Amino acid sequence: MALFPGGATPPDPPGIRVGVIGVGMIGQDHIRRITQVLTGGSVTAVNDVDAARAGQVAAGLPGAVTHATAQDLIADGNVDAVLVASWGPAHEEQVVAAIAAGKPVFCEKPLAPSSAACQRIMDAEMAAGRRLVQVGFMRRYDAGYRAMKAALDDGGLGVPLLMHCAHRNPSVPDYGFTTDMIISDSAVHEIDIVRWLFGEEIVAASVLTPRRSGHAPEGLQDPLILVLEMSGGALVDDELFVSARYGYDVRGEIVCETGTVALADVSEVTVRTQNRHSGRVPVDWRDRFIRAYDTELQDWLSAVAAGTSTGPTSWDGFAAAVVTDAALEALRSGQRTAVSMPERPEFYAK
Amino acid sequence: MALFPGGATPPDPPGIRVGVIGVGMIGQDHIRRITQVLTGGSVTAVNDVDAARAGQVAAGLPGAVTHATAQDLIADGNVDAVLVASWGPAHEEQVVAAIAAGKPVFCEKPLAPSSAACQRIMDAEMAAGRRLVQVGFMRRYDAGYRAMKAALDDGGLGVPLLMHCAHRNPSVPDYGFTTDMIISDSAVHEIDIVRWLFGEEIVAASVLTPRRSGHAPEGLQDPLILVLEMSGGALVDDELFVSARYGYDVRGEIVCETGTVALADVSEVTVRTQNRHSGRVPVDWRDRFIRAYDTELQDWLSAVAAGTSTGPTSWDGFAAAVVTDAALEALRSGQRTAVSMPERPEFYAK
Amino acid sequence: MALFPGGATPPDPPGIRVGVIGVGMIGQDHIRRITQVLTGGSVTAVNDVDAARAGQVAAGLPGAVTHATAQDLIADGNVDAVLVASWGPAHEEQVVAAIAAGKPVFCEKPLAPSSAACQRIMDAEMAAGRRLVQVGFMRRYDAGYRAMKAALDDGGLGVPLLMHCAHRNPSVPDYGFTTDMIISDSAVHEIDIVRWLFGEEIVAASVLTPRRSGHAPEGLQDPLILVLEMSGGALVDDELFVSARYGYDVRGEIVCETGTVALADVSEVTVRTQNRHSGRVPVDWRDRFIRAYDTELQDWLSAVAAGTSTGPTSWDGFAAAVVTDAALEALRSGQRTAVSMPERPEFYAK
Amino acid sequence: MALFPGGATPPDPPGIRVGVIGVGMIGQDHIRRITQVLTGGSVTAVNDVDAARAGQVAAGLPGAVTHATAQDLIADGNVDAVLVASWGPAHEEQVVAAIAAGKPVFCEKPLAPSSAACQRIMDAEMAAGRRLVQVGFMRRYDAGYRAMKAALDDGGLGVPLLMHCAHRNPSVPDYGFTTDMIISDSAVHEIDIVRWLFGEEIVAASVLTPRRSGHAPEGLQDPLILVLEMSGGALVDDELFVSARYGYDVRGEIVCETGTVALADVSEVTVRTQNRHSGRVPVDWRDRFIRAYDTELQDWLSAVAAGTSTGPTSWDGFAAAVVTDAALEALRSGQRTAVSMPERPEFYAK
Repeated sequence: MALFPGGATPPDPPGIRVGVIGVGMIGQDHIRRITQVLTGGSVTAVNDVDAARAGQVAAGLPGAVTHATAQDLIADGNVDAVLVASWGPAHEEQVVAAIAAGKPVFCEKPLAPSSAACQRIMDAEMAAGRRLVQVGFMRRYDAGYRAMKAALDDGGLGVPLLMHCAHRNPSVPDYGFTTDMIISDSAVHEIDIVRWLFGEEIVAASVLTPRRSGHAPEGLQDPLILVLEMSGGALVDDELFVSARYGYDVRGEIVCETGTVALADVSEVTVRTQNRHSGRVPVDWRDRFIRAYDTELQDWLSAVAAGTSTGPTSWDGFAAAVVTDAALEALRSGQRTAVSMPERPEFYAK
Repeated sequence: MALFPGGATPPDPPGIRVGVIGVGMIGQDHIRRITQVLTGGSVTAVNDVDAARAGQVAAGLPGAVTHATAQDLIADGNVDAVLVASWGPAHEEQVVAAIAAGKPVFCEKPLAPSSAACQRIMDAEMAAGRRLVQVGFMRRYDAGYRAMKAALDDGGLGVPLLMHCAHRNPSVPDYGFTTDMIISDSAVHEIDIVRWLFGEEIVAASVLTPRRSGHAPEGLQDPLILVLEMSGGALVDDELFVSARYGYDVRGEIVCETGTVALADVSEVTVRTQNRHSGRVPVDWRDRFIRAYDTELQDWLSAVAAGTSTGPTSWDGFAAAVVTDAALEALRSGQRTAVSMPERPEFYAK
Repeated sequence: MALFPGGATPPDPPGIRVGVIGVGMIGQDHIRRITQVLTGGSVTAVNDVDAARAGQVAAGLPGAVTHATAQDLIADGNVDAVLVASWGPAHEEQVVAAIAAGKPVFCEKPLAPSSAACQRIMDAEMAAGRRLVQVGFMRRYDAGYRAMKAALDDGGLGVPLLMHCAHRNPSVPDYGFTTDMIISDSAVHEIDIVRWLFGEEIVAASVLTPRRSGHAPEGLQDPLILVLEMSGGALVDDELFVSARYGYDVRGEIVCETGTVALADVSEVTVRTQNRHSGRVPVDWRDRFIRAYDTELQDWLSAVAAGTSTGPTSWDGFAAAVVTDAALEALRSGQRTAVSMPERPEFYAK
Repeated sequence: MALFPGGATPPDPPGIRVGVIGVGMIGQDHIRRITQVLTGGSVTAVNDVDAARAGQVAAGLPGAVTHATAQDLIADGNVDAVLVASWGPAHEEQVVAAIAAGKPVFCEKPLAPSSAACQRIMDAEMAAGRRLVQVGFMRRYDAGYRAMKAALDDGGLGVPLLMHCAHRNPSVPDYGFTTDMIISDSAVHEIDIVRWLFGEEIVAASVLTPRRSGHAPEGLQDPLILVLEMSGGALVDDELFVSARYGYDVRGEIVCETGTVALADVSEVTVRTQNRHSGRVPVDWRDRFIRAYDTELQDWLSAVAAGTSTGPTSWDGFAAAVVTDAALEALRSGQRTAVSMPERPEFYAK
């Protein structure tokens, strides 16, 4: 068996030269990934609103420079592609600048904090005439969700009718985490993943408020249940619980006409002791999704190298923002809220 | 949180320049791994007894050259480290040559087909004065076995007393696969992994012959049960079944004084249909262990870059060969066979 | 260890002499249970609207007589207790007659088709001055739900906040099964069990209508999601799917402040073949709950023998009817519907 | 659907009148079973070497009498059938006496402590001309083993080649439990069940001695591995561990040509807390096998009522004794020991 049928292996060094904007926790993690885990990329420039932090990170990256502004980084001739890991409100300007420079850009979610800002990014990208933006919805790269989608697409289970999700975090900071953020930071992952799994848009959202956990930080309504209606009629219920204490547990079951497919508990070993047989629950999102992040960013580097774009698009970022707006409105009003989703531009057709 | 506390990230390009000897299936897979998956390495030279195949593979590797002999490849100034994936009988000469050249060498298992040949490799390495050889026992890098070892080393389950293993392949070729190879090719993985898990040597081996499967190729005694005795008294029974048909299934449970730890079934999803709930069994060794191979080779590249050696050593390759000899003798004689393991040289102390 | 500490084993023969009203499928199954499985009871009289069927069943029961009317059976001096397995609309008259005769009565669910009829049964029982009625909510006797309740009551998981349920039947008859019956026949089981698990009343109900399965009989809106709100604030979502095809699957997970407890898949064996490891899903309600029925009826016989009453009461039957009414109204209106539950009479205090 | 097709339900009261010889823990448990759980039987007489204990038990059984000797009990006209739960050395005389009286007898395992004594029981039974003896190998009535056997007999998995068993008890008494008893008391269950599962006799036994648990009582070699060879060539390895601490765990996997079938973990619920998802392991044999005991004794009562014999026979008790002898010899000698099994008499043909 020839593993290189066409004789066309992409060259490794120097690979895609990435400039990273925002070197907080997630930015640093992506830098570690590019330099120590993945192939075909290197980090040649960094920028951060905290210049000292930028300098400290760059010091650990041989050959990398620090830029005073995101604009300077984007303009750097030694930067082939841009990774945006700054805080949300800065995304629009930075992504649009990268588009203007004709450079591929990976933007952590959310693409932008408002659907209007996402719309402006799409406008810029359409004006540029080619897809340059990938949004960081990493669950699409998780082996579990991929196996789910494969089971759905296989057709053997029939049409999907509903989906049950749970998204449980052990805890959130005692201060600063709001109920809105349970929608905009947590539920946004399910909002994207169900659009991808079902291959449909979301047409309405409702929010139910169960009994509040005594372990939730003061003022936080936790847990919530978000109900999403898909354009084909399927319903999705999504338990969001950010003070779940026992672990980081993301669960999902799609119910189809002749069977169901569910994310399984993935524990490498089973331990039997003290009258229990047990497996491990992940401790945090990193533990659960680290490989999805690796696959996601490798996919981006490979697509950039190949001059293509394969991951979640600006449209996906925009659609998630539109649904998030509706879900936040549903949370506020207590009412089922229709999603006002415009037509998908031909530019973003699959 | 600073991910680069000391500011000392190893440089990526050009990374370790690897010369690959033997570009059959496993050699090509390692090349794909180095060039498309891992970081910190590139393939700069290849050699194969089949020169045409070597040329074809090199053609797909920008910047890589083909060498007429293994010796030439090892001598190449653009080769920092050598990966030996040729057939077993060639290993000794090639590994010894790499040692003589002072170049780190990764050698696929078996280190050499006889314990005497392994001994000569150790002698050469000890004469060279530093550890240069890593043997391809990739199970030590599997997340399941690592979690098992962590559970053992934690101490909460008490002293390990016995281990049950099963090593099931769906099938082997109809011709050319012998009963001896069930020991030397399949069981050698358990022989190494139990030495590593228990941190002890194997002192005796016995082989039991169950009823033969009607699906085994003619002349093959399949399945077998290999029983290993550890120096601390623990017993290991290992079912070896290379015509198991239903999938590639590697199982293991260590029984300790107050509990057990077992490899779990790892399936990303659970499907419910037709009155069954079910998960996936891997289809082959690649499916089951691909990530262990990735981790193993990344570990090697990183160790080479750091000038250290961390994986299975020549001693491990030698010890596996000595135990394999005893197991083959036990298969022939039907008797419990003591393992004649020499003292571990100080050079290979942990 | 003395198994008979007080030396007080209840005598076996002749045991409680049971008269059975209604000998259709469920009535015959209870007769089989009393005569061939359980201890401490015998069937001495039967009655059915189909006199021929009654005669045929009685012919198989040595010593049992047939009565022309339910009233005659209740009055029979050889009948100690009455089992009502007739169709729902007949329950009220028969149960009230048994109460009037001072005889304990086990009534299959529903206690009566309307909450008003259930109220009249409670009135009669309160007038009689002692609890004589047990309603056939057999899930309370299921080992799974009992283990769930034990986990809740233990307190180690904290306060329950929400519960996810699924109630899946492989199929229903092509004709005659209405969407209302998904509530009144299927959901009524969850309506009772969550009252029992949480030890709280239900205060509101909503019904969501997902995409309809193409396998649902014409005119049936299947599946449904019923949302119940408990008096303490906990929410319950209950997927009801009577055309689920793949098996009879009853699932439940209670989410508490520091952990969850869920019904497990119970399969006696795991089969590994054709690249799957799999367990069995029950084929029907009998397969899933047969032991719960056994335990339920044994509990009733023992309670009757002891002159006590321990199972689900008329109040439980009434409360289920009141919630069912609200759920049906919610189905009709598409609106959240408050449950108008009167105060629980002191007579039915726990 | 007629549940009584032939109209032939066996009468309940008074049922089979059972005399119980030996009212220690297991005898009392069977009495509880007959009087409080099962149908179709009552206990009318008891006997015990400890007359005071017999009297105390009889006092709790309305209508039951105490007999000074086993012989008197067997002769009692109010005793239809005899249950022998005395200590092993007394079994032969009591079972033979019951046979002589023409009364069906249920004898707890072992049928008798020596194969010679078992042979004498068979001789007596054959002389009597009909099968009167059932031996208490209750695992044949366990739902797990029954599902295993059904999977084997179905044929879909091909011919069975080997079986892995584990039989773990949390602990044994500190004094009085010998290594021989691990074979004669524990392993005897696997010895019987594999004969039943495979439908073959055992032809040889070997015993391996792993590292001893520090929790084993002084002088006890625990755990052991017993290897059994079936007449068809299949091998069985059986881990016996009576100081396993963590719970009572009986495991088994039969490996066939195209798949395997294994006893599953049966836990009613899954609990998620403290970063683990876990299920329950039984605490003791009663917890694990109580339903098998119920089914076994109900089956016996029903067979006695029908004048037939369906369970494990004297031949099964004898065969288990012969294999146990060989296994004990193998333990003593450290050698593989052939089983000297005579031809099965035609009288005991299946």
